[in-house]
Amino acid sequence: MGVMCEEVTQVVIPAAAFIGIGFALLQWFLVSKVRVSGDSDDYDHEYKGSLIDEAEFEEGVDGLEASIKCAEIQNAISVGATSFLFTEYRYLGIFMGVFGVIIFLFLGSVKGFSTESEPCTYNTGNYCKPALANAFFTTVAFLLGALTSVLSGFLGMKIATYANARTTLEARKGVGKAFITAFRSGAVMGFLLAANGLLVLWVTINLFKQYYEDDWEGLYESITGYGLGGSSMALFGRVGGGIYTKAADVGADLVGKVEKNIPEDDPRNPAVIADNVGDNVGDIAGMGSDLFGSYAESSCAALFVASISSFGVSLDYTAMSYPLIISSMGIVVCLATTVFATDLFEIKNVSEIEPSLKRQLLISTVLMTAGIAVVNFFALPSEFTLYDFGAEKAVKNWHIFFCVAIGLWAGLAIGYTTEYYTSNAYSPVQDVADSCRTGAATNVIFGLALGYKSVIIPIFSIAIAIYVSFSFAAMYGISVAALGMLSTIATGLAIDAYGPISDNAGGIAEMAGMSHKIRERTDALDAAGNTTAAIGKGFAIGSAALVSLALFGAYVSRAGIKTVDVLTPKVFIGLIVGAMLPYWFSAMTMKSVGSAALKMVEEVRRQFNSIPGLMEGLAKPDYATCVKISTDASLREMIPPGALVMLTPLIAGTIFGVETLAGVLAGSLVSGVQVAISASNTGGAWDNAKKYIEAGVNEHAKSLGPKGSDAHKAAVIGDTIGDPLKDTSGPSLNILIKLMAVESLVFAPFFATHGGLIFKLF
Amino acid sequence: MGVMCEEVTQVVIPAAAFIGIGFALLQWFLVSKVRVSGDSDDYDHEYKGSLIDEAEFEEGVDGLEASIKCAEIQNAISVGATSFLFTEYRYLGIFMGVFGVIIFLFLGSVKGFSTESEPCTYNTGNYCKPALANAFFTTVAFLLGALTSVLSGFLGMKIATYANARTTLEARKGVGKAFITAFRSGAVMGFLLAANGLLVLWVTINLFKQYYEDDWEGLYESITGYGLGGSSMALFGRVGGGIYTKAADVGADLVGKVEKNIPEDDPRNPAVIADNVGDNVGDIAGMGSDLFGSYAESSCAALFVASISSFGVSLDYTAMSYPLIISSMGIVVCLATTVFATDLFEIKNVSEIEPSLKRQLLISTVLMTAGIAVVNFFALPSEFTLYDFGAEKAVKNWHIFFCVAIGLWAGLAIGYTTEYYTSNAYSPVQDVADSCRTGAATNVIFGLALGYKSVIIPIFSIAIAIYVSFSFAAMYGISVAALGMLSTIATGLAIDAYGPISDNAGGIAEMAGMSHKIRERTDALDAAGNTTAAIGKGFAIGSAALVSLALFGAYVSRAGIKTVDVLTPKVFIGLIVGAMLPYWFSAMTMKSVGSAALKMVEEVRRQFNSIPGLMEGLAKPDYATCVKISTDASLREMIPPGALVMLTPLIAGTIFGVETLAGVLAGSLVSGVQVAISASNTGGAWDNAKKYIEAGVNEHAKSLGPKGSDAHKAAVIGDTIGDPLKDTSGPSLNILIKLMAVESLVFAPFFATHGGLIFKLF
Repeated sequence: MGVMCEEVTQVVIPAAAFIGIGFALLQWFLVSKVRVSGDSDDYDHEYKGSLIDEAEFEEGVDGLEASIKCAEIQNAISVGATSFLFTEYRYLGIFMGVFGVIIFLFLGSVKGFSTESEPCTYNTGNYCKPALANAFFTTVAFLLGALTSVLSGFLGMKIATYANARTTLEARKGVGKAFITAFRSGAVMGFLLAANGLLVLWVTINLFKQYYEDDWEGLYESITGYGLGGSSMALFGRVGGGIYTKAADVGADLVGKVEKNIPEDDPRNPAVIADNVGDNVGDIAGMGSDLFGSYAESSCAALFVASISSFGVSLDYTAMSYPLIISSMGIVVCLATTVFATDLFEIKNVSEIEPSLKRQLLISTVLMTAGIAVVNFFALPSEFTLYDFGAEKAVKNWHIFFCVAIGLWAGLAIGYTTEYYTSNAYSPVQDVADSCRTGAATNVIFGLALGYKSVIIPIFSIAIAIYVSFSFAAMYGISVAALGMLSTIATGLAIDAYGPISDNAGGIAEMAGMSHKIRERTDALDAAGNTTAAIGKGFAIGSAALVSLALFGAYVSRAGIKTVDVLTPKVFIGLIVGAMLPYWFSAMTMKSVGSAALKMVEEVRRQFNSIPGLMEGLAKPDYATCVKISTDASLREMIPPGALVMLTPLIAGTIFGVETLAGVLAGSLVSGVQVAISASNTGGAWDNAKKYIEAGVNEHAKSLGPKGSDAHKAAVIGDTIGDPLKDTSGPSLNILIKLMAVESLVFAPFFATHGGLIFKLF
Repeated sequence: MGVMCEEVTQVVIPAAAFIGIGFALLQWFLVSKVRVSGDSDDYDHEYKGSLIDEAEFEEGVDGLEASIKCAEIQNAISVGATSFLFTEYRYLGIFMGVFGVIIFLFLGSVKGFSTESEPCTYNTGNYCKPALANAFFTTVAFLLGALTSVLSGFLGMKIATYANARTTLEARKGVGKAFITAFRSGAVMGFLLAANGLLVLWVTINLFKQYYEDDWEGLYESITGYGLGGSSMALFGRVGGGIYTKAADVGADLVGKVEKNIPEDDPRNPAVIADNVGDNVGDIAGMGSDLFGSYAESSCAALFVASISSFGVSLDYTAMSYPLIISSMGIVVCLATTVFATDLFEIKNVSEIEPSLKRQLLISTVLMTAGIAVVNFFALPSEFTLYDFGAEKAVKNWHIFFCVAIGLWAGLAIGYTTEYYTSNAYSPVQDVADSCRTGAATNVIFGLALGYKSVIIPIFSIAIAIYVSFSFAAMYGISVAALGMLSTIATGLAIDAYGPISDNAGGIAEMAGMSHKIRERTDALDAAGNTTAAIGKGFAIGSAALVSLALFGAYVSRAGIKTVDVLTPKVFIGLIVGAMLPYWFSAMTMKSVGSAALKMVEEVRRQFNSIPGLMEGLAKPDYATCVKISTDASLREMIPPGALVMLTPLIAGTIFGVETLAGVLAGSLVSGVQVAISASNTGGAWDNAKKYIEAGVNEHAKSLGPKGSDAHKAAVIGDTIGDPLKDTSGPSLNILIKLMAVESLVFAPFFATHGGLIFKLF
């Protein structure tokens, strides 16, 4: 037993969750102090009393008019995003219902829907609850996970659409103020998500315990449904949102920037509202449910392995709850870190943004390392045994410390590498920008090469993390390493979500016709945002790799496989087909974006041709039709890739059996990670190469620009190609690898009993 | 024992080899009947007597002048190619020397350079030759393999540069004549390569047998050096040649087509000779040594596994030689197939080219299936046992038939799928062409998606082939499946090599200022050639996958590993790092092409700016400087990727040991196959999408064209991006996966004895 007794644990976890929620609400309150409205009292109140030089407002529309326009645009974006999400949720509701029934039937059938207690699998000599109960509670956990995921995405979208216009308005006061507003809003999302995920999981465990009592094996088996629910919603959120945002973005750019030569986010472009809605449903809601999924899955994987280890057998509740306590500590650490960003340092200058965000990562990592040590001391016994594929592994307290810490630091290494490869402050992106001199072709070649190269250090980091944590604590080690990487999720999400908010803010500034200076400031925020978005994706992918491996280990344990030997044909064909899946999936999502974008292009062209005075700014475009095209396309197009991911484990497991499925999971994991990292970094680099040329901060950049030069045109083409790579196909792959693993884990008893039909027949 | 006795085997194999060589020489003789010279007698002799309408010659330069010009240009290309290859061989000579010493020292050190006989590893109870002898003979086999590979590439280049101008001149008579000339020349290369590879291997085995006598374990262990030699030369041939050809091609296109708006292969373009030289050193010499490497390696893998199975233990020479007899049968089958193409059907029309080439594939596959049955009946005993990772597997004669046949038919499936995705006769490429309407960005997005999608069927084909052959005959099954796929190599190479020859022919027609009609004909040949080149690459990749797996199995057997369990940290980190290597490698090769192309662009621009009258065609450009830039760049740039491939197995094996290395091999295999197939098909599709727009064969194509339209410009950008993908990084990956596997196999005894330093230390 550790130092901490069960009662304290039962207080500490919800307390941390409530602290996180409270802190998020506080940040929301601070953001809400920026007024967006047409009410002139508000305006007087805020600006007349301030010391800001009125000269700031001389270009473009003035303060009050801007505020009214911003409110209008914000409303349009918010309405579009909400309506998309609600339409999406209708589909997801049907999916949840159907899949919930499938889970119940498949798992119920394992013991023929018997209601009798069974001898436990691992805790030998004792009796466990019937398989039918596990089927029922797994289904409930699935639904809870799905709802929490939907809630995470929705809340993120709400705060982001609330913050975008406020960031624009604050940009009038300076880049520092705008940064703080965007960053605080990101923090709202980060803390709400981390705290909600923790709270719902804790409540679910405690409710289920009322029924399961001492049968922790069954209890935590059912809890894995929570991860599956979270991740399957994330799939549709990421894929649907990703297609939405990039169909609109690519479509808007192709006609607006390339054909009509009007700036990005110009209000004359009919697809501009859809584009800005897309940032919120894709980069915010999609990212939120993705990271929530990772968090839920790594917790479930760790809990499951713990339940069949000495923690579970000896009913040590505090040690069992170690993953939740780590997450609780993470919330506290991130809270401290955020205070550094928002209160201790002030951003005065564009060039301080990226270092400040990097510092956030470093601070949270250093603090969390100490936090892990504290948690380990209080929550874990000094020695215990862990389940290791049929054997028992003796583990010491400090081994687990190293597992969590190495995951955490591997995350930092991935973050820093991503920053190096996608920020336009360093040579890789500058080289890509330079290659635009000779046209779009060399830009694309250099960009692809950059993406491939950026895989090296993250993979070595992940490999080292896996080796250390695997050697110290087998699959439990891997899952807590993943949790370690995700423990600072609140900070990670804050710095990630700030990017799309700034992007939206820039769009609003442009559409409201605000002065050029404001757009420059939001662009600078956005450029840093591209990098942090890439960092966020790096984290998402890195943690997905660890999470999938942990889930893979849990699946293998639950399916009763002792070895996954590459030298058997069943496993090897699984491996090579699994390695192919990320390509199949990417082909579907990229093609979807391409087709949807073509439809958008046609509509935008049609409007420019048929609405008189549109190009001159005399008539208003029909934004709603473009929003509808994106909505319809994304909902229709998310079905095939979704089906691929959801059906592959079911088909592989049922027809080819548990070994082939193990091969498929390993193959898709090792191949998908590479595709995902390279796609997301290539896209980030192209975007920032373009921004580098546009901003013209040094001699080299100036020699490539200005906007409209041949090099800039080549850069725009690269940026457009990168859009689906970095925001649709790349990040969706995280979910491919995680979701197939967690689905396999949930259905493992079914596959173990009824799977491998083809080999049974022949 | 099979029906065939040892003496017959010893006659059949060299006889087939000599038949192949004889047939190749016959084809060469037929090609040589087309005269390329300035001698007017020749001209009179050939054309005055013919019934060709002189009106054919009315556009452009006339017959005699054309013939003289063609001879000049051909000579320039041939000189450039020869000089590059000789420079390359100087470097390769040094590499061979150094690496030969490394092999000798590493393998010699296994038993401390002892000259005493050792107890055999598999053939228990008997004594085998000392490890030092194995080290020596492995080194000799390595050198022989390397020399044969160099010879294969060189001969291919020679015949290709001999045939290019002849194809141009024949194109005056019609597309059918030109096709036959190009195809015959491809056949020369195919048959010479297949026959030489077989002959040298057979001679080497028989020479080594003089020393080894009944120690077949040692004999065939040493023979594996032959595969390593072949493959390591192929690495440099593919990478060096690939960088050469694409640096020149991309550089020439970027300035010529994009900036100066002059046609491809325009003689005013200073990089045009380098571009045409590149086709020969990259697509011909590189491809030749690549496929020779696959052939040598699959033979070695099969022979090695056989030697530790009942064939080897019972000294059944005919059964042992089964892989060689299959290759012998392949030569005969391909000979029959070629006769169909060259004599039975005549191509009259452009649209018949692709079906005719497809028919070649089908005919050779059907005939070979019968051929395999014949070989099996005569060469194999009805029942025998094979080594299966420490166990014995009882196998029947007909099991092996299915193994070879499924490899063969999987090759056909891959070929047909590749054709579907890269030929502009089908919707995938037409969709890509259509996406050019909205610019280069959508073209690139659709092209990448097409490449990803084209992976699906090949991977399932490979997976099925692996499953069947693995289940029937373990690793021996895999290696003979690979041999089955390669058994029709002579036909495969013929239809592959015809593409670059036609490409060159088109270049020569353009440079010689011949009529537009001639260029149209060679363009049509070239478009079909892009597809067949993609098919050839598909074969190369598919066979590389099977070969690598076979080598992997042989390595694992030789290193004494019983299982490669993904659930151990050592193996898993190998797997994920291995899956990363294709990306690292591609990053290097693509960056190399990009940088070399930028240098070429600068030089071409410099010449256009500084040579007065160049643009007007009044002055001659300085071709030699461009040739030198390509040569220098490719030789310098091939070293880092080469080092990555050669050093990875040595480092992984020595420092992390045999299990991690096994993981690396499996990871790079399953990941590399996908990257290679998608890269090569994406590139092929872009090239043909461009050709589709240019040719304007139907309403749809016409609506996108003509040359110079916006859609065509977008297509040119795609084509340029595809160049390094399809001709440098993609095909080089075959060699990455094969070479690491064969190198591991050769060094396995060393790693098993001295490897895993890091785990020994900690």
